[in-house]
Amino acid sequence: MEEERVTLDLLKKKMDNFAKERDWEKFHSPRNLLLALVGEVGELSEIFQWRGEVPKGLPDWKEEDKTHLGEELSDVLLYLIRLSDICGVDLGKAALRKIELNALKYPVNLSKGSSNKYSDTNTSSNSSSINGGD
Amino acid sequence: MEEERVTLDLLKKKMDNFAKERDWEKFHSPRNLLLALVGEVGELSEIFQWRGEVPKGLPDWKEEDKTHLGEELSDVLLYLIRLSDICGVDLGKAALRKIELNALKYPVNLSKGSSNKYSDTNTSSNSSSINGGD
Amino acid sequence: MEEERVTLDLLKKKMDNFAKERDWEKFHSPRNLLLALVGEVGELSEIFQWRGEVPKGLPDWKEEDKTHLGEELSDVLLYLIRLSDICGVDLGKAALRKIELNALKYPVNLSKGSSNKYSDTNTSSNSSSINGGD
Amino acid sequence: MEEERVTLDLLKKKMDNFAKERDWEKFHSPRNLLLALVGEVGELSEIFQWRGEVPKGLPDWKEEDKTHLGEELSDVLLYLIRLSDICGVDLGKAALRKIELNALKYPVNLSKGSSNKYSDTNTSSNSSSINGGD
Repeated sequence: MEEERVTLDLLKKKMDNFAKERDWEKFHSPRNLLLALVGEVGELSEIFQWRGEVPKGLPDWKEEDKTHLGEELSDVLLYLIRLSDICGVDLGKAALRKIELNALKYPVNLSKGSSNKYSDTNTSSNSSSINGGD
Repeated sequence: MEEERVTLDLLKKKMDNFAKERDWEKFHSPRNLLLALVGEVGELSEIFQWRGEVPKGLPDWKEEDKTHLGEELSDVLLYLIRLSDICGVDLGKAALRKIELNALKYPVNLSKGSSNKYSDTNTSSNSSSINGGD
Repeated sequence: MEEERVTLDLLKKKMDNFAKERDWEKFHSPRNLLLALVGEVGELSEIFQWRGEVPKGLPDWKEEDKTHLGEELSDVLLYLIRLSDICGVDLGKAALRKIELNALKYPVNLSKGSSNKYSDTNTSSNSSSINGGD
Repeated sequence: MEEERVTLDLLKKKMDNFAKERDWEKFHSPRNLLLALVGEVGELSEIFQWRGEVPKGLPDWKEEDKTHLGEELSDVLLYLIRLSDICGVDLGKAALRKIELNALKYPVNLSKGSSNKYSDTNTSSNSSSINGGD
């Protein structure tokens, strides 16, 4: 399979099949999966915890560290997809909609450069997120 | 677009374009994005925090709560995709590979039913994950 | 030392001394410590991830699992205290103040029983926290 | 009260009293509290997410931002103490014990300077923590 064609739907089906084959569906309640997701985010954070700032592209990382990073990013993704599926949320549809909402919330002409969004974040206690996840 | 065709690659490109248009790339360092991801995981957790256990499919949730859930799941996804992109990780490729690794780690015949995996997790201090994210 | 006399200040000094002795202060930047904290919260979550709901007091847990839990709770605490110290925040003072703020925010007569606070949380998308951490 | 005398036990009792007065004990199950803790860690992360690296002591932060930081650090602390109490863990005792374990794990003479601990973390995929939270 060409990587650029990996859909959320494909990964969802693979996860569902994986759980069915092993009779693991009984473990996959929403909050069990959410805590598993938090656990994986913790492992992802451990990769970055003692490094200080790292530049884009991770130019100085060893190949095995980048591979490890890919595994932890994947673990977060797979639990996120599974959690969405178990909750009955169409994640692909929701994500496309969220990007549209963000575009409305942060119009290009008002958000450009030293955007109010980030300036606000840096100077007030009302922190927020560029995905508008408030 | 049909939702079942939403690729990780499409979302990656949309996020990249979104940041470029707003001149926000300068904010998107790996650790900034990681902390933003952690913030969104926190918001996702808040949705579930006082509910006790909830059944699959969230049958009793109000429509607006499910919509809100979809937004928070999306925020996590979008930062995860952006973080992967900025780190130079092909997330789709990594996720497919991770599923294969998990299949090797948890063979169907050995993992079925009351799998050792989960039994171990429930009875010892060596917790682990069904995605093999150790 | 009697356990009921363990102060935040004592733990802060022990952590500071621990880092100084090992020349580890250079690793203890605010965001490094924050990510380490997130990592420990992940490990704490892993302990609970496949268990479903668990009753107060953890009556069915094995002694070694409770010991492990105590270690992970401690890891979160120690990084939190260290992070506060490195940021110049008096955590004991801040915590006492926060409890007072919470008492003002959730007056006993208005919050009792099926409190609005939790009722809101359970029925709307405006999730929040009983510590008022909004 | 002098701040250096704030004990974990005092905060535990205040939290217990706070919940009792409001009849909120029924909401304080272990996993509810854990998810609330994760939510607060998310809010703490949001404070740091777009800032890039920040120096010790936060010299350039506005007073209101430092106050906000103190509140979020406190929220994490208070839920952590409450979670420990509900799980029947003596957090002060556990924390003192954990520091002793860490001292055994990272002897001063072997850990000093460019410690193996951190060097390992920076060069291999076996990430770990200075609190030994593995």
